Amino acid sequence: MHPVITAFAASPDRGRGLARDMPVRWAFEEVGQPYDVRLLSFAEMKQTAHRTLQPFGQIPTYECGGLALFESGAIVLHIAQNHTGLLPDDPDARARAITWMFAAVSTVEPVITQLENTVYMERDKPWFFERLPLMEDLIRIRLGELSERLGTFDWLDGTFSAGDLLMVQVLRRLGSSNLLSEYPSLCAYIARAEARPAFQRAFAAQFAVFNSARTQPTLHDV
Amino acid sequence: MHPVITAFAASPDRGRGLARDMPVRWAFEEVGQPYDVRLLSFAEMKQTAHRTLQPFGQIPTYECGGLALFESGAIVLHIAQNHTGLLPDDPDARARAITWMFAAVSTVEPVITQLENTVYMERDKPWFFERLPLMEDLIRIRLGELSERLGTFDWLDGTFSAGDLLMVQVLRRLGSSNLLSEYPSLCAYIARAEARPAFQRAFAAQFAVFNSARTQPTLHDV
Repeated sequence: MHPVITAFAASPDRGRGLARDMPVRWAFEEVGQPYDVRLLSFAEMKQTAHRTLQPFGQIPTYECGGLALFESGAIVLHIAQNHTGLLPDDPDARARAITWMFAAVSTVEPVITQLENTVYMERDKPWFFERLPLMEDLIRIRLGELSERLGTFDWLDGTFSAGDLLMVQVLRRLGSSNLLSEYPSLCAYIARAEARPAFQRAFAAQFAVFNSARTQPTLHDV
Repeated sequence: MHPVITAFAASPDRGRGLARDMPVRWAFEEVGQPYDVRLLSFAEMKQTAHRTLQPFGQIPTYECGGLALFESGAIVLHIAQNHTGLLPDDPDARARAITWMFAAVSTVEPVITQLENTVYMERDKPWFFERLPLMEDLIRIRLGELSERLGTFDWLDGTFSAGDLLMVQVLRRLGSSNLLSEYPSLCAYIARAEARPAFQRAFAAQFAVFNSARTQPTLHDV
């Protein structure tokens, strides 16, 4: 029995690997754990059956035996703690890698999500173009600090870890903006991560779902 | 040698226990681990010496022996993993408690921080009062979902855990708004947590710092 995760039947990211099943797929690939995927329509995500697994009506979830988890960060940590390859063996280095996992989802990602919310919800508001630079500047502060810390290293703390995995995945959400290009060392950091065979297998798997949904729409996806 | 954490010398929350040293103090108190505190002025937080420990120039940090960590969520998890009292022994229940830790800092907190940023940065903008309800409605969605999941239970998943600790601490940031009062079960959840002796000791300790800073301003705090 492989673990089963949920993902969008028709991802709004158009197959760019920005949905939150991507870090979980990537983590499975890094540790060599096969997994199955159950696809959900937007309507199904909001129904009681799914909310029992995911109280906020989001993807992904993780089910294995009697255990059900949600939150991509928690699922990646669970995979990392139960397999070799995503956390160092040394307890101190392990705690530092977990620190970067939290930094990714609770210090860097929120300023990016805030920009996404602004674009999604306020694109037609009269204040949109005046507010946009305020949101972008909050992101620049974090990117500058992250770039400063990364310096000339390949990864945030020694070897590649679940901390890098989550951080890169968060930074990839900025792909369609020009903000990242102001930080060449972060662009190189993302490119190094995207070159990993595990990333590429995960990316291909989620892209195949998008491609299939595009060519064969189901009742749920319409 | 006790672990040493950093905190604001003069907290902008005026001693209400909303700064991010509070969950770490609370975690130490829950597990019975004494700790020391090193206070920092805002200027010191942005200096290189502190940024070596905390690349984003924030508090808290955690130092013990040769280990240095940051991110309150990661520090609470580190304390919980190395002591008894904040995570269940059963591996599945433990993974679920960690899921709630991530839900607190990466699903619930960001919509609250977004409102705080709006109030802090855009209070004088002409669009402020039109935007405010948009931000509040995003919070209401999360509070409603959380309240629905909590139901009539005391805690989010069985006994009190580090997941409840972080979730309550995140919800407490809404204290000065009227949003929480729309969700009586969440108010009762917060009150249950605040009644814990460990919470009260942690609250008193951070309040003593604020009180002392107020009555005895130092060079750094001016």
